[in-house]
Amino acid sequence: MPGNGRVTLAQISAEAGVSLATISKVLNGRADVAPATRARVEEHLLRHGYTRRGRERRGDFLELVFHELESSWSMEVIEGVEDVAKAAGLSLVLTVSGSRHSPAADWVDGVLRRRPVGVVMVFSDVATPNRDKLRSRGIPFVIVDPAGDPSPDVPSVGSANWSGGVMATRHLIELGHRRIAAITGPEDMMCSLARIDGYRSAMNAAGLPIAPEWITFGDFHTSGGQTRARELLALPEPPTAIFAGSDLQALGAIAAAQEAGLSVPGDLSIVGYDDIALARWMSPQLTTVHQPLRRMGEEAARLALRMAEGAQPDTLRMDLATHLVVRGSTAPLSDRARR
Amino acid sequence: MPGNGRVTLAQISAEAGVSLATISKVLNGRADVAPATRARVEEHLLRHGYTRRGRERRGDFLELVFHELESSWSMEVIEGVEDVAKAAGLSLVLTVSGSRHSPAADWVDGVLRRRPVGVVMVFSDVATPNRDKLRSRGIPFVIVDPAGDPSPDVPSVGSANWSGGVMATRHLIELGHRRIAAITGPEDMMCSLARIDGYRSAMNAAGLPIAPEWITFGDFHTSGGQTRARELLALPEPPTAIFAGSDLQALGAIAAAQEAGLSVPGDLSIVGYDDIALARWMSPQLTTVHQPLRRMGEEAARLALRMAEGAQPDTLRMDLATHLVVRGSTAPLSDRARR
Repeated sequence: MPGNGRVTLAQISAEAGVSLATISKVLNGRADVAPATRARVEEHLLRHGYTRRGRERRGDFLELVFHELESSWSMEVIEGVEDVAKAAGLSLVLTVSGSRHSPAADWVDGVLRRRPVGVVMVFSDVATPNRDKLRSRGIPFVIVDPAGDPSPDVPSVGSANWSGGVMATRHLIELGHRRIAAITGPEDMMCSLARIDGYRSAMNAAGLPIAPEWITFGDFHTSGGQTRARELLALPEPPTAIFAGSDLQALGAIAAAQEAGLSVPGDLSIVGYDDIALARWMSPQLTTVHQPLRRMGEEAARLALRMAEGAQPDTLRMDLATHLVVRGSTAPLSDRARR
Repeated sequence: MPGNGRVTLAQISAEAGVSLATISKVLNGRADVAPATRARVEEHLLRHGYTRRGRERRGDFLELVFHELESSWSMEVIEGVEDVAKAAGLSLVLTVSGSRHSPAADWVDGVLRRRPVGVVMVFSDVATPNRDKLRSRGIPFVIVDPAGDPSPDVPSVGSANWSGGVMATRHLIELGHRRIAAITGPEDMMCSLARIDGYRSAMNAAGLPIAPEWITFGDFHTSGGQTRARELLALPEPPTAIFAGSDLQALGAIAAAQEAGLSVPGDLSIVGYDDIALARWMSPQLTTVHQPLRRMGEEAARLALRMAEGAQPDTLRMDLATHLVVRGSTAPLSDRARR
């Protein structure tokens, strides 16, 4: 029967025919257990809904997991998580999983060995077996800005991506632009889809058609933005404005415009997304959608700490507000750009 | 007598009149020891040159300490350290000390409790008492790019700051500039002094005078660069070129030039320092001195690991080479700029 969490390790030991010492090894992610035995123990833990109690054996740190560090905005999330960890007297362990969507299996074993107070994952979903492992050890985890479609029972902190897409596109429409293209992130990331849906909705609401070739998917990096913008600018009827999906992609798009001899915003308006620290120092200063990255890190860390103390989260999905910051990379549609 | 490291804890216990349990608490940075007792134990440990042996009680992580995270280049150092830690099967603990020059005392007690395999510090020096504490516990530490004048016996990894200053300045001289100003980092940081000395040497070698008001000290951040550049451009005879000391300061200087209606590089040439990932995406693309930040992180982490295994570093100070990357923010002195 699905458990009430009250099963003891002695019961599991008896049922599974495995010694208490071996069960303890499995709980602590130790390597010296035969795979079949490990699987049997995990199965019994899961069946009974076993949850480890007490904090006595936990390390005194929060673990923060990135799939990669190169994003310019990683630092802002780190700062937010680090602030909350420090205020709680905890260290911060930083792990780079190397895979976009889900940390590798050996990462989870490492977490079980390290026993952090809680885990904050950026841009990662957690496969169900790993999720079960973390739960049975009483290690809470929170996802920041999920890449996929997170299960409704996984706590996550995001931002209003759809509204951000609407705001960026509406701003361009209000400036008189009609041929507005979009470069967004990878097609399999939920935040990309939400932003592009916001773009579509704003275009539809204004009664503007969307040519299929105006919607392109980048990789959230600078060079991807440059490549996609080059393609858009080479269209027979190129766009007069681009919603670039991230600030790095906006930088790449500005570079592509310059290559093509176009001035930004005179000939081409560009809106970014994120509002990284350098956005206001770019030339031109970037009009962009502000995403509260630091606060997202803080909220995720706070939620993980509250869960570690036994609290149930009030809500499993928190979306922080985004807002448009108008700077110098967008301008009213000029006669020149209109052609 | 200065010790040979062979003293036992039992001897120290007898000499200091303190129980072995208390000595163990002091060694592990535990809080529940009277300050006077702690000081007495530390004194005896130091006098005998006690060094803890063996790795058995160590955590399985490297600790990386920043005084602040906001520098754009922190991420590259983190990537380098993380790579080496991961290859060695270690986690990375990230600590932000909040003070530019030396981590606070409570940071050191935290390290003694956590027992990392080694510590890499960025931009920090370590006060002698803390250094002694780390040494007696056998926790090796390596400094990346020291802020002050590190003791010759502290292992550190830097880059060729003086050569970088020479290369940047010589490049501007070769372009025909004569009125060349410099914005460098804080006056009390060794890297700033080395870069500005390189600037001076290049100017002197070319027989060019340096007006005292041409040398200014910033804070390595964007807004500091903007403020200093504004002051330089307001001089009765403004410079035609600026060596900006860091890429962020170069960004600030570009913003100041634009405010003043000057084009970069047409009216003003600007050289940065660091070559952060975004330098080639700026408008104009930044001419800058490449500092191998990622490799500096790697080398420091490798050195800390080798020391943890008992090796003596071949050399206590390693300076990696810098080189000039010429892009679009510098140009030959124009008749217009010459005035």
